[in-house]
Amino acid sequence: MDNFTLYNPTKLIFGKDTIPSLREEIPQDSRVLALFGGGSVKKNGVFEQVTQALSNHTCHHFWGVEPNPSVETLRNAIELGREKGCNFILAVGGGSVIDGAKLVAAAIPYSGDPWDLVLKRNYTHSETLPLGCVLTLPATGSEMNRGAVITNKATKEKFAFYSHTPKFSILDPQSCYTLSHYQKACGLADTFVHVLEQYLTTPGQSPLMDRWAEGILLTLLEIAPKVMEEGENYQEMASFMLSATMGLNGFIALGVSQDWTTHMIGHELSALHNLTHAHTLAIVLPGTLRVLREEKGDKIVQMAKRVFSIDGGDRDRVIESTIEEIEQFFISLGFKIRLSQSGVPIETIYEIERRFESRGVKLGENRAVDSTIVRKILDSVI
Amino acid sequence: MDNFTLYNPTKLIFGKDTIPSLREEIPQDSRVLALFGGGSVKKNGVFEQVTQALSNHTCHHFWGVEPNPSVETLRNAIELGREKGCNFILAVGGGSVIDGAKLVAAAIPYSGDPWDLVLKRNYTHSETLPLGCVLTLPATGSEMNRGAVITNKATKEKFAFYSHTPKFSILDPQSCYTLSHYQKACGLADTFVHVLEQYLTTPGQSPLMDRWAEGILLTLLEIAPKVMEEGENYQEMASFMLSATMGLNGFIALGVSQDWTTHMIGHELSALHNLTHAHTLAIVLPGTLRVLREEKGDKIVQMAKRVFSIDGGDRDRVIESTIEEIEQFFISLGFKIRLSQSGVPIETIYEIERRFESRGVKLGENRAVDSTIVRKILDSVI
Repeated sequence: MDNFTLYNPTKLIFGKDTIPSLREEIPQDSRVLALFGGGSVKKNGVFEQVTQALSNHTCHHFWGVEPNPSVETLRNAIELGREKGCNFILAVGGGSVIDGAKLVAAAIPYSGDPWDLVLKRNYTHSETLPLGCVLTLPATGSEMNRGAVITNKATKEKFAFYSHTPKFSILDPQSCYTLSHYQKACGLADTFVHVLEQYLTTPGQSPLMDRWAEGILLTLLEIAPKVMEEGENYQEMASFMLSATMGLNGFIALGVSQDWTTHMIGHELSALHNLTHAHTLAIVLPGTLRVLREEKGDKIVQMAKRVFSIDGGDRDRVIESTIEEIEQFFISLGFKIRLSQSGVPIETIYEIERRFESRGVKLGENRAVDSTIVRKILDSVI
Repeated sequence: MDNFTLYNPTKLIFGKDTIPSLREEIPQDSRVLALFGGGSVKKNGVFEQVTQALSNHTCHHFWGVEPNPSVETLRNAIELGREKGCNFILAVGGGSVIDGAKLVAAAIPYSGDPWDLVLKRNYTHSETLPLGCVLTLPATGSEMNRGAVITNKATKEKFAFYSHTPKFSILDPQSCYTLSHYQKACGLADTFVHVLEQYLTTPGQSPLMDRWAEGILLTLLEIAPKVMEEGENYQEMASFMLSATMGLNGFIALGVSQDWTTHMIGHELSALHNLTHAHTLAIVLPGTLRVLREEKGDKIVQMAKRVFSIDGGDRDRVIESTIEEIEQFFISLGFKIRLSQSGVPIETIYEIERRFESRGVKLGENRAVDSTIVRKILDSVI
């Protein structure tokens, strides 16, 4: 087990009818800048609950934080926040709104351009404004971690950036009842891959973390069909929300190595073709596992047994069956899992290879994934 | 799933050679009151590492916080802390030292007697002094939760009390190498029972929390033989420490009911006969499960399958086999699991029944455990 530090002071307020607690969680004298996405919160009643809870607060609204939030859009939010002297940021929406809000919270008191902060990668300044969240789409775990992923439309780049954890996050599973099939599929796939990227590495590092990661995977496989059904399944929606948050708040990553290869390649596909984040993961992950099957083999075999009840038999066959099970899960959620089915041309593979080559970054738990391996991964999912 | 709030801002610093980080974690201008137990930290090198790390801090030492820490002893520590104007409390030891330190941290700025605070049960005053911990015995989870259990020798009472979570806790598995067989057995049993008291209740509340609880149980069963062996097994000791902390820091209790019947009865056995806390749990738990087998049956059957691989067959037989497996685990750790083997006379059962009757408290996830059921539980483990 590697040494680690766990520090996650986000107050997670979870359950039925919890949005009114906003009133107590945001200091009364705050000047709030509330960020929203495209307007779905007006349809599911969340916007009304938020404005009701903050009826005695000074609160300015910024609409239009898009999926894959762009620095271009966020510059406008930052300008509004500065103009109104806002000192508390509230994100109401999914991971994109929360990610965008993390940059806004850091950038309002920062004198330079917000993209500089993204390029710093790690920016935890004491002047960064406090952030609260009302989550409406379980997926990214951003409501309880330090990360954010920001896109630069001008340069077609997409990078992760790390700030403070939110001060609080409110999760009412009822606010997910109106999510579309596609949104739910994306949230389930995103969570599933987050867990795998913290799990499918070197075996034997931490038996407890292995069990906890497998616990989220088993839960997702169990609840997915009911979550995807129409209807107001509170229990399943609550398990979905909880799994998404616990999948990327650090709790399953204690002392174990990680491999974010799939995410890093996926970000390039989103940046170049504006594919949904989860869709890119469903395409790339099977490629990552097939190309890295030697180094990840022991862990894949463990997953085969404990998650898919595939026990015994030829090792290669077990590994291949496990990857096929994962592919079937993505397909069951409605994803097209090949580049050619998703409108991505061969040239994109070469462009992504070039990008990784020029950055000189090596990915993977053993830092063995260079631009050539990246190309092999994409070649395997044409 | 029930509504819940998770807020655990303890900074957990975990791993090899992490004790020197004390220097940075405690503000340089603090006046530190360091609390210790009976002196084992002088044998395992922890005391030397702590004093080395704090060589530039003002630090006063208080020795002699006993197992089942008593308000009588702690009053002396509080007096020393006030006399020296201490404003930061450091606990170096196991759960008893940390529990005692929580009361000391709350009581130094409090004008009345510390036992008043214990009787308040929940005391989270803003003036409570910050607390840091160096844990040397994994068991109670006190290093990452709000709870403490304090004994009043004069009245032979033992109560739980809740304060703030520690500001930080440092866990170096190497500091557990010198623990005795008995100490390790107590830590393993205590952790095992903590998990069961958050797990063996109503089924179907949260599939994820179930999996995480089962994950700790499976880990404990897997590592226990190696932990109990002599020798410096870093990996196993690290898993033991991690399991003990994760077993009682709130992470497996999100939105599920709990049943602390076994702990509550065990506290009475400790208070009346000074039995070790874990020993009382090993005695009481099988009784709790046998007497409450109807309401806990479905969950016990789930545990049978997932933890002990007992699958199918007669329901009553499966439940009994599971309880026997748990008993065997305690016996394998060296515990005597009956009252008569442990020097507890029949009269104690009536005294404990009287205590619960006079308090009028009802225990259990369904608040159905009254003094009569308490007596039945103890009768079943004579």
